[in-house]
Amino acid sequence: MKLKYSIGVDLGGTNIKLGVVRSDGKIKSKISLPTKAKRGPEFVVKQIISGVEELKKKNKVKIVGIGVGSPGSIIHKKGTVENPPNFPGWKRVHLGKLVSKGTGINVVVENDANAAAIGEMIYGAGKETKSFIMVTLGTGVGGGIIINRKIYRGERGAAGEIGHITVNYNGRRCKCGSRGCVETYIGNSYLIEDVKKNLSKRKDSKIYEIINGDSSISPKVISEAFQYGDDYAVEIIERAGSILGYGLASVVNLLDISNIVIGGGVAGFGKPLFASVKSSIIERVMIPFKENISVRRAKLRNDAGIKGAAALAFYK
Amino acid sequence: MKLKYSIGVDLGGTNIKLGVVRSDGKIKSKISLPTKAKRGPEFVVKQIISGVEELKKKNKVKIVGIGVGSPGSIIHKKGTVENPPNFPGWKRVHLGKLVSKGTGINVVVENDANAAAIGEMIYGAGKETKSFIMVTLGTGVGGGIIINRKIYRGERGAAGEIGHITVNYNGRRCKCGSRGCVETYIGNSYLIEDVKKNLSKRKDSKIYEIINGDSSISPKVISEAFQYGDDYAVEIIERAGSILGYGLASVVNLLDISNIVIGGGVAGFGKPLFASVKSSIIERVMIPFKENISVRRAKLRNDAGIKGAAALAFYK
Repeated sequence: MKLKYSIGVDLGGTNIKLGVVRSDGKIKSKISLPTKAKRGPEFVVKQIISGVEELKKKNKVKIVGIGVGSPGSIIHKKGTVENPPNFPGWKRVHLGKLVSKGTGINVVVENDANAAAIGEMIYGAGKETKSFIMVTLGTGVGGGIIINRKIYRGERGAAGEIGHITVNYNGRRCKCGSRGCVETYIGNSYLIEDVKKNLSKRKDSKIYEIINGDSSISPKVISEAFQYGDDYAVEIIERAGSILGYGLASVVNLLDISNIVIGGGVAGFGKPLFASVKSSIIERVMIPFKENISVRRAKLRNDAGIKGAAALAFYK
Repeated sequence: MKLKYSIGVDLGGTNIKLGVVRSDGKIKSKISLPTKAKRGPEFVVKQIISGVEELKKKNKVKIVGIGVGSPGSIIHKKGTVENPPNFPGWKRVHLGKLVSKGTGINVVVENDANAAAIGEMIYGAGKETKSFIMVTLGTGVGGGIIINRKIYRGERGAAGEIGHITVNYNGRRCKCGSRGCVETYIGNSYLIEDVKKNLSKRKDSKIYEIINGDSSISPKVISEAFQYGDDYAVEIIERAGSILGYGLASVVNLLDISNIVIGGGVAGFGKPLFASVKSSIIERVMIPFKENISVRRAKLRNDAGIKGAAALAFYK
């Protein structure tokens, strides 16, 4: 098969990452520009267009399309983005139309969590899988649902909010306004907050030793401590995995989909996390679902955002 | 449009209810036979066939098909029923083939909760609705998912287990093996168990007065007490509704479907139940979903099982 090229745009609150990506998922060239979201939508659109122009100049290949993975509510058919968090002044922006007009190339806009799921389906861990649940563990917890090789969007394109499945209706308040969402247990910021709060009681832990008085705890530090067999790190990872598993058990019972793919920074905890997610799903799902549960790590890691967005141009 | 007729078979653990149903949802004729499930699958199949024969004799109309709503895991394409609870000795029964062979009529077999959803879509509250979540509140809590006028079955035909969405991962043990499932709060048996346990502390309540020493508390008794404005009855209904709402908020966040239809015996609590379900969904779902939430009572009430099953023959 002849390789084709698309441009993937990963629109973040701080940076816009763009790349020319081959139809087999390899990045040919990539750049990053500051989003400067405060300067408003017109400026951000200009940044995207100038990024695309730069990539086109550097790479003399035919670009079949541009895919944009964006935060916020996306109306996929219209290519509009509504109220992305951390983008002041955006109410509804016709991002697809504006970028397409500025570049002369077809543009597909998709929610960033859905783009990650499509990326895994086309290039990654979901290549051979008919249906799967994609979970992206980052600052928040995003999700995408692939059913029979199609992204499931729901009525307004907002489906897949796995981070906001409630596992404890009396639990901690979530940024979304609800309580006890999966995100309040395994979202980066909540997880780190908990570790910070409890660390003074765990001065014997390797985590305490690694950060050495510095308060910047990160999933990476926890992983490192885990490598040393640190009890507290094991506890943190297993608890986070179990609770994600409880939430995913509800998803499996509801959707009868047995394949789970997990990506994002916190997925860096690796095997111990996946093992505890899997065992807690199996413990909690109904009997017919127990035997086929599969929990895998996403294959797109660095540049997952660019690749997922680029995949949109290859997805029909 | 010319009216057609099908036969709906509602296969229950105690009785088999059968009816000749018109394509507009009216029942022309119905009968009930004991299931005698203990006598094994062959006997039950014979009962179904003899019921169909009886209805055919009584009703000289052309029957376009037979629909069977069955408990257990159903492989819809093959018409097989696996391990229905309360049916000893059934492992896998080719119910569709056997009934079709015995009656000479095409047979469609579906999970009873899915049949209820299809019934509401074809004759009932979901007639004008593209996508909705059907919840059946009975001894257990069943569910069916209609997406774009199609039942969503999942990988093995077992999707829609709304009763087994976890709302509290540390909650009470559920019959399914998990903890804190929606069913452990609003399933008939758990609900009644709770009322029984707490009634001695609520001797001032109308419920206590109505049952008058007799221990047979039922949703009907609670409804009756509610009519009198009884505080305890209000509490029970509002709490059950809220918790169902918390579970459904997870479903809405995941599926981006705003229409909920609730049927089954416990739905007899009526408006106060629906109001609390709705307000708790709206309280808990993410912002984009808040404005369109609709919670309605199922339209098929008596004979919902027969009608839902009969609808299977009209569903493509």
